[in-house]
Amino acid sequence: MPVGATLFDAASWNGIAVDSTCGGHGTCRKCRMRVVEGDVAVSRLDPRAFGPDELRDGWRLACRARAEQDLRVEVPPLVTRPKAATVGVGRQVILRPAVQKRCVTLPEPTLSDQRTDLERLRDALPDLELRADLPVIRDLSRALRAGAADNADAAGAVGSTVTAVVVDDVLVDVEPGDTSGRLFGIAFDLGTTTVVATLLDLATGTPVAVASLLNPQQPFGADVITRISATMMDVDALDRLTALAHDALDQLAGEVCADGGVDRGEVYEIALAGNATMTHLALGLDPEPLGVAPFIMASRSFDALTAVDLGVRVHPRARAYVFPALGAYVGGDIVSGALASGMDRDRRIRLFIDIGTNCEILLAAGDRLFATAAPAGPAFEGAAIRCGMRAAPGAVEGVKISDEDVLLQVIGDVAPVGLAGSGLVDAVAAMVAAGLVDASGRLVTPDAAGVPPGLADRLRQVGQERVFVLHFRGDDPVDSLYLSQRDIRELQFAKAAIATGWTLLLEEQGLTGEDVAQVLLAGSFGSYLAPAAAVRIGLVPDVALLRIVSAGNVAGEGAKMALLSLRERAAAQALVEEVHYVELSDRADFNDRFVDRLAFPV
Amino acid sequence: MPVGATLFDAASWNGIAVDSTCGGHGTCRKCRMRVVEGDVAVSRLDPRAFGPDELRDGWRLACRARAEQDLRVEVPPLVTRPKAATVGVGRQVILRPAVQKRCVTLPEPTLSDQRTDLERLRDALPDLELRADLPVIRDLSRALRAGAADNADAAGAVGSTVTAVVVDDVLVDVEPGDTSGRLFGIAFDLGTTTVVATLLDLATGTPVAVASLLNPQQPFGADVITRISATMMDVDALDRLTALAHDALDQLAGEVCADGGVDRGEVYEIALAGNATMTHLALGLDPEPLGVAPFIMASRSFDALTAVDLGVRVHPRARAYVFPALGAYVGGDIVSGALASGMDRDRRIRLFIDIGTNCEILLAAGDRLFATAAPAGPAFEGAAIRCGMRAAPGAVEGVKISDEDVLLQVIGDVAPVGLAGSGLVDAVAAMVAAGLVDASGRLVTPDAAGVPPGLADRLRQVGQERVFVLHFRGDDPVDSLYLSQRDIRELQFAKAAIATGWTLLLEEQGLTGEDVAQVLLAGSFGSYLAPAAAVRIGLVPDVALLRIVSAGNVAGEGAKMALLSLRERAAAQALVEEVHYVELSDRADFNDRFVDRLAFPV
Repeated sequence: MPVGATLFDAASWNGIAVDSTCGGHGTCRKCRMRVVEGDVAVSRLDPRAFGPDELRDGWRLACRARAEQDLRVEVPPLVTRPKAATVGVGRQVILRPAVQKRCVTLPEPTLSDQRTDLERLRDALPDLELRADLPVIRDLSRALRAGAADNADAAGAVGSTVTAVVVDDVLVDVEPGDTSGRLFGIAFDLGTTTVVATLLDLATGTPVAVASLLNPQQPFGADVITRISATMMDVDALDRLTALAHDALDQLAGEVCADGGVDRGEVYEIALAGNATMTHLALGLDPEPLGVAPFIMASRSFDALTAVDLGVRVHPRARAYVFPALGAYVGGDIVSGALASGMDRDRRIRLFIDIGTNCEILLAAGDRLFATAAPAGPAFEGAAIRCGMRAAPGAVEGVKISDEDVLLQVIGDVAPVGLAGSGLVDAVAAMVAAGLVDASGRLVTPDAAGVPPGLADRLRQVGQERVFVLHFRGDDPVDSLYLSQRDIRELQFAKAAIATGWTLLLEEQGLTGEDVAQVLLAGSFGSYLAPAAAVRIGLVPDVALLRIVSAGNVAGEGAKMALLSLRERAAAQALVEEVHYVELSDRADFNDRFVDRLAFPV
Repeated sequence: MPVGATLFDAASWNGIAVDSTCGGHGTCRKCRMRVVEGDVAVSRLDPRAFGPDELRDGWRLACRARAEQDLRVEVPPLVTRPKAATVGVGRQVILRPAVQKRCVTLPEPTLSDQRTDLERLRDALPDLELRADLPVIRDLSRALRAGAADNADAAGAVGSTVTAVVVDDVLVDVEPGDTSGRLFGIAFDLGTTTVVATLLDLATGTPVAVASLLNPQQPFGADVITRISATMMDVDALDRLTALAHDALDQLAGEVCADGGVDRGEVYEIALAGNATMTHLALGLDPEPLGVAPFIMASRSFDALTAVDLGVRVHPRARAYVFPALGAYVGGDIVSGALASGMDRDRRIRLFIDIGTNCEILLAAGDRLFATAAPAGPAFEGAAIRCGMRAAPGAVEGVKISDEDVLLQVIGDVAPVGLAGSGLVDAVAAMVAAGLVDASGRLVTPDAAGVPPGLADRLRQVGQERVFVLHFRGDDPVDSLYLSQRDIRELQFAKAAIATGWTLLLEEQGLTGEDVAQVLLAGSFGSYLAPAAAVRIGLVPDVALLRIVSAGNVAGEGAKMALLSLRERAAAQALVEEVHYVELSDRADFNDRFVDRLAFPV
């Protein structure tokens, strides 16, 4: 921590939950700490919170106490429920949302106190530098008078009790009476395939409701490139894609509010994590420059967005936070995921790999972060694989090959229909292990040396192409579930692209795969991938299997964290500014490394 | 000037025109000055603008040269047309509008330069901290590519030439090519009676076209109080008044643009001066609290307004500057007028009096400024006067009374129809001088001592009331143009209210009317008022007539100045913060002073 930081901030940064209801503004007097070694001056507010004995004993309000030297400080255990939420990869987030509600009672104006409505409110919130746009000023005097009427009903006209809703330093509403217990936000994970919304209670940090749906942009293409192409071919496609994104977000907002018993008007902020294409489309920005070299974004980040900009009907002046992007192919979803994974908070050498059509790779090495994108192609999503399919009932997600037989792990209690991405990796890994595929990726012939007799019959031809049958349907392999030579090549190219990515990132830092302390596999595909198979085909560095961790839906977790904590949002911004982005398509050594990485390690 | 101010700023503050096309950003290298006494360090940019000999001789770029000690500096005479406009009461305004256009050529992106569109633009304008909202980001890449195409046509693809339009620190547009010569603004004077628009060329500071119309809100009432009452009685009235204000402003914008040969889209900022009620109505703010004690405004000032907020269809993201108000009855029009009159720039004791139904009074005394509002009532607008009328053809605007006759000065070459405000003041002043009205305001009887025989016949009765006939139409005074006892009382109450206002302001500073060095009469009525008559009836302090100055339409002048110069805008803000507002309706001594001031000085 820098010299002069408050004890409150120091505790928060270190993940120590501090009791506070004013967010460190010096008004709730709850953030009591005792300085046991070192000196901290008594602040103006301390005598109001502590008696002389307590002050002598070192008690201070943490939000006013500045550490000018090394200190040892005792933090009392929280007696109330800790205001912290566990999200992401087991991280605790200190609750300090951008949204805050502040209930104040304003004195009635008189001829000797003719302050304007806005001045009266600002003076009651001296710690905030409130900005107020015209619409909220329009509502302000109405709320003040309604607040006054309420008070007059209760205990005579003592003033107007109103609740100011503030997001960052923007006044978004002034509500009559005390509504400070009700404030909500929605975190969106806007994926190319799936859209997920989580309603969060920003007063407690707890999730209230979750809903998801398939991205309705799918008819325009399964992946980002086809959707970008659609906008280049049809002048109306951008508007339609934007409208579809808005519809999806708004529908989910309605669902989680209904589920959670929350009025849409009580949602004052939304946060969204998505890749650069999804973000551009949702904001109505032309995505064409993302799709063609040199891959240029309109902007890395977007300030002062509102929920209206994303088509989400919640509070009419609700703000929107959209995760900033590192590059056209390392988008806000990855920044969000890196945040949730604490990629910036761990000095070990770690790789973060989000596997998809476009594979994003982050390398954390000490204080430094590097990012790149690798064009893996659609193999992992089953698109270019003869018997490929998405992870759905009937999809083979795991494959084991013994000397005699092939064992398939199928999603749902049904007959195998096709091969999911994880099943593809598993199958090829097992075939390499069984000697059915050689190091160069070639399917062996049935009569090759070492092919177990029980498996030789599965090595067939379909047309001109060699295949390995995983599951017979009748005797003709063309009707069966099989893996073709071309499928294996597809996988080989995909994994080589990814492996080239992390190899180049590691090489630039003078590192090799052996130096990697942890590999985080992110994204829905990464969650299902068997670490052993990933190592076996060379998709990830050859590290101990326990060091390969499935990170889950980290993009969504990061979006929640951004809603709950301005500190996390600042950390995301810092990530974007600190990460060194490495463009692979520009590299002279890319093809060399790619060829190196095509082979299967044997 | 504070230590460390630039020579550029020092010159500007002292009204010395400095040649500059970049507004002091260090890029045009035109603000050359020679330091002849004292030392100023050579800046990083100086060697690019001057040779070694010149640097040794003391030549510096004024915008980079900081005065750390007293200096004597030679400012070369302007060889180009001075970039300054003469507006207001003979003041020169240094041209530095909030709107600026900056033409830049941006390098084409490459794989090794993947900066986003916005970053590319920001990096080309390093002196600006650009904020860009979503709509302008949407247009940005389109403009960049259009700019690139234009360049490719001309001289091969060297980059994109675009012109950034910036208002304050907000990017409002990016236009393909170099459009930097075309930037305009519209200054509006939104009066209760009349609305005036002036189109200004912000590149040269010159007015291009002017248009005016009667405020179409008039059917809702002639003055602000009746319009406020209308909103209290009819729930739709506010919306209609707002729409009427928008229509008027937009119609005038269309007229001045058509007259000036300017596209509406080339107008990037508008400025508006109006009283608090006109401003509230135009912004759709409930004016009711302005109309009832304790007279509370929603806000004193409004940030981040756009032309859309005022219903003016110019550039879709044009900004709007609305003059801040001192109080519910000393509005932005008065701040604008005080600015144009240089009330903050003159250490003499000066009074600024804007006479109308509501009379605003400012007192400048040394460094200090005081303001108040006096409820003069509608006498000066002819509303409560039996034969009163607005200043229009047929209105008597001047009255002279000799021993034998009454001479009327009539607007237009027509028979007298009624009495304008200035004629009313003139008539009463002349009647007091002729002994026809005594000090207490009573009309004398025809047989009273000292009444000239030639005038006695004009002292008649209409019903129960005594009148003085100014112009006979037949013999029955009821058909004639006359002034009644009640009319004189109306004027007496009006002038007493105003005189009480300046008397109390002066008294609070230990001053009397004799200390006043200058009286500025503002507003359309003030322009027509005869100084001698105003002194005669005690409407203004009894000072030498040459010290009573008609200031003209200063509210409109101030609005122009705010468009032309951020410095003037800052001065307006400083005025609002520095002026001490004195509420008269709260004063125990108001009625005493009011009674003192009812009499006519004789």
